[in-house]
Amino acid sequence: MTADLLIVGTGLIGTSLALALEGQMNVVLDDQDAAALSVAVARGAGRAWDHRERARHAVLALPLSAIAPTLLQLQKQEVAQTWSHVASAQSPVQRDIEALRVDTSSVCGGHPMAGSERSGPTAASATLFLGRPWALCPSRTTSPSALLAARRVAELAGGDPVELPADQHDLAVALVSHLPQVAASALAAVVLAEGQKDLASLRLSGPGLQDSTRIAASDPAMWTEILGHNARAVAPLVRALADELGRAATDLEGLASGSSPAAGPASDVTASVRALIARGNAGRRLVPVKHGEHDGAFAVVRVAVPDRPGQLAGVLLAAAEADINVEDVRVEHLAGRPRGVIELLVTASEREQAGAALAARGWDVVG
Amino acid sequence: MTADLLIVGTGLIGTSLALALEGQMNVVLDDQDAAALSVAVARGAGRAWDHRERARHAVLALPLSAIAPTLLQLQKQEVAQTWSHVASAQSPVQRDIEALRVDTSSVCGGHPMAGSERSGPTAASATLFLGRPWALCPSRTTSPSALLAARRVAELAGGDPVELPADQHDLAVALVSHLPQVAASALAAVVLAEGQKDLASLRLSGPGLQDSTRIAASDPAMWTEILGHNARAVAPLVRALADELGRAATDLEGLASGSSPAAGPASDVTASVRALIARGNAGRRLVPVKHGEHDGAFAVVRVAVPDRPGQLAGVLLAAAEADINVEDVRVEHLAGRPRGVIELLVTASEREQAGAALAARGWDVVG
Repeated sequence: MTADLLIVGTGLIGTSLALALEGQMNVVLDDQDAAALSVAVARGAGRAWDHRERARHAVLALPLSAIAPTLLQLQKQEVAQTWSHVASAQSPVQRDIEALRVDTSSVCGGHPMAGSERSGPTAASATLFLGRPWALCPSRTTSPSALLAARRVAELAGGDPVELPADQHDLAVALVSHLPQVAASALAAVVLAEGQKDLASLRLSGPGLQDSTRIAASDPAMWTEILGHNARAVAPLVRALADELGRAATDLEGLASGSSPAAGPASDVTASVRALIARGNAGRRLVPVKHGEHDGAFAVVRVAVPDRPGQLAGVLLAAAEADINVEDVRVEHLAGRPRGVIELLVTASEREQAGAALAARGWDVVG
Repeated sequence: MTADLLIVGTGLIGTSLALALEGQMNVVLDDQDAAALSVAVARGAGRAWDHRERARHAVLALPLSAIAPTLLQLQKQEVAQTWSHVASAQSPVQRDIEALRVDTSSVCGGHPMAGSERSGPTAASATLFLGRPWALCPSRTTSPSALLAARRVAELAGGDPVELPADQHDLAVALVSHLPQVAASALAAVVLAEGQKDLASLRLSGPGLQDSTRIAASDPAMWTEILGHNARAVAPLVRALADELGRAATDLEGLASGSSPAAGPASDVTASVRALIARGNAGRRLVPVKHGEHDGAFAVVRVAVPDRPGQLAGVLLAAAEADINVEDVRVEHLAGRPRGVIELLVTASEREQAGAALAARGWDVVG
């Protein structure tokens, strides 16, 4: 018997991939950590690999430095016909593989742009890859069949394949993933230092600080390895951010002291602070949000509801009856308060109509 | 006739406050921008003030530098008995007011910890303050009745009053609001610079970059004024963040070049990167999330549904029937895909039970 897919590594990514492919592919799983493997099997991700069965394709969902050695060992046993991996940095892994003189034509690099600040098979989710970009990075020697097999796994898992060379991938993830990680960690480190002096300040926290520090909860071991492997691409971006903030600090120090020789006259300093916020506006507009659309495409309808079970269902039933296409829902449900608020995200052009339709059905549309 | 409340300034905060108090207080509105005032009135926020009617309490929802002069002018006309404002920096406004020799006993500083990256009366929402901290900063001379009136407005608007001195407020918001704003703007400015070189990188963006840059969309004029007024408290925090990132850049440059004399041996540099991520973990744990609880208190139940209207309502009806307390809902609904996923946020201790209850009712619980 030949499995469709062998997944080596049952951490967050490997187990999520197996769960996403359930019912679509015959999947066998392996992990040198027997506990992780048994959690993944218990979650219904697939069968444990018996170390003999062969597979049409294998995905190595392993730490960066383990990918090439594992590939070498499994290729010797002729376990799979084609191979891919899910490395957060593609060029170093491609170089490692080429250095080993294994059959590189059967290998296609890959990297789903999905993850979580939590890790391990218990945090895995069948929906982790849904609608997320999945980078495919064939090398010069990658065969069409290896690329096709890697692409098929990405698509069946719900990802959106994006084909690009390894070095371009590494520059792109340095910007969209590794830089934000370092920025969030550094911001949370400042919060730690200040919080240790006076924890009371944090009582005034709102969504801004919450969103800005969410990924600061990510695993240090994993991120140390990722940043180490992609240091060449990340370092200049972190330097650019540090310099940007250093200039902002100098400007603010100038404003704090009324204006200083170092910072120039106050009006120049004010203009410089304002220019930073304005450049931030322009940069934010480049970031794709919700379904690849940008901020302005959606609008919120707010409905106030009494704090009783079933209100959320009622609002959504009314929306469904009115043929309102609800893109997302958020609940401001406050324990002990007499009412909560349900926010429905709809396309901006449908906002007025959606609000009117809910109001006509007796719901208290408040904004 | 005497109004309960005069709100001067019908921007995001003033109009949202008026909407939040609708049906609870008799509110009159004023704004020197007639267009903004008429939008607020049209949204049902209250009556336009006739410049003669008196009010028991007045809230000045104005830019920082306009608060003291407006107070002076309105106090001369004896418009209100007590006064508050919503300044993002309290000490400078308190000093301005004291310098004017107006009656300071009738004034209580206030600041709702709520806002939006959008501005103006069209972005206003009755629910903006719901469950958010609302700082109250009485001065040494503030009378009990002025504090009580300011507190009552905060409570009726759904906020959670937090009483603290003006200087402590300014240090706290420098950390939880102004620093994250500068950090997000600087990060988005780097995204802008890189995006101008190669926009294709941004195709790989995920939720990390989205969340980290959301508030970078905020208004430059407003933020320049806020940062200018609180520069003394913000400057050292921005400097600390710049230094933290400068050290991270040096570490990463060391790793990129194999290790450099400046950065020390590679193992030290790696340890330093790892320590930053670990300190970020600890800092993140200090940030209150959802309802003042911390991350670990909640867990997600994922349900796969066909892409048909009414599925979301169906899942939530089932949850209501099973007495599951749904704290929040998120929809991964992908246009053109055969199925979407609904994520329900529940308390961690109820997660297993909630998943089982939904599965028992025939829903496809996938994680």
